[in-house]
Amino acid sequence: MKRTTFLLVLVAILAGVAVFTPITPRFARAQEAAPIVVKEIPAGYRDWKVVSVAHEAGQLNDIRAVLGNDIAIKAYREGKLPFPEGAIVGRIAWSFVASEENNKVFGSNQSFVAGSPTDTYLQFMVKDSKKYAATGGWGYSSFDKDGKPTDEAAMKSCFPCHQKITDRDFIFSKYTP
Amino acid sequence: MKRTTFLLVLVAILAGVAVFTPITPRFARAQEAAPIVVKEIPAGYRDWKVVSVAHEAGQLNDIRAVLGNDIAIKAYREGKLPFPEGAIVGRIAWSFVASEENNKVFGSNQSFVAGSPTDTYLQFMVKDSKKYAATGGWGYSSFDKDGKPTDEAAMKSCFPCHQKITDRDFIFSKYTP
Repeated sequence: MKRTTFLLVLVAILAGVAVFTPITPRFARAQEAAPIVVKEIPAGYRDWKVVSVAHEAGQLNDIRAVLGNDIAIKAYREGKLPFPEGAIVGRIAWSFVASEENNKVFGSNQSFVAGSPTDTYLQFMVKDSKKYAATGGWGYSSFDKDGKPTDEAAMKSCFPCHQKITDRDFIFSKYTP
Repeated sequence: MKRTTFLLVLVAILAGVAVFTPITPRFARAQEAAPIVVKEIPAGYRDWKVVSVAHEAGQLNDIRAVLGNDIAIKAYREGKLPFPEGAIVGRIAWSFVASEENNKVFGSNQSFVAGSPTDTYLQFMVKDSKKYAATGGWGYSSFDKDGKPTDEAAMKSCFPCHQKITDRDFIFSKYTP
């Protein structure tokens, strides 16, 4: 009886291990992990060159500068797609505010300037085809005014939108000379 | 008679010279010459760092990046006023256009991007306290999309507006981190 009990317990343990160890092929694991979120702000981003500028109205209500590190800017200027490894495209978003000072000087309500940082102040896309294979070769990051990463749940919306820009390697912004 | 005639002619000539040679002190001459227009586009301006971004609605209907050369950016970041000699602040203005591509992806008419260069595509203020003393120490320049300077008559409107920004050395744009 003792030996039978021991064997039964052993079988039960092994069965349990099998049940709680799901068989996950590489591809499935990558899909589950998507999007892969980057947690560090790239060094020196505020010194990067300008890709372009934009205004998002509606709920975002921001005005933004899109910048690129040297690898990204070189690729943009040469019209090279897809972007090479190491390319980083970033954007800074400030609140979109009417400038009373400017309007007074111009005598017309026409001037809108960059105000305080928005809730998603800084966002970056980092190119690493292997590391971020599950999200089109780009890792996504987003930070508030204090440099705190945006919560991961919200980050799941990055790739579904960006992946629609198939003819420019998932990047919305075009370079404006 | 001949001598009298000669003397009269001489007096008339001298009087004429006196009349047509106005007495112009240095200050008056500087005023007449204002604004001093700069005719060259600064080299490498498209690689400069971002001061801020802005949108001018109404007739201008542009979106713009304000950039600075290293001297200007350093002064901005250190909050130093007036700007040192050699500082150049520039702005690139693109037409303000709705992005149908972005709006389609977002499912909302919210996105405005930089389009083609405007009629006053590039503008710069160059700090040289002596050379441009008549216009607050800044020389002004403006260029269209082909790099052709804006006509000088239009340039007369630069300083009258800028000189109203007395507490920031005649510069509208504030640095946004």
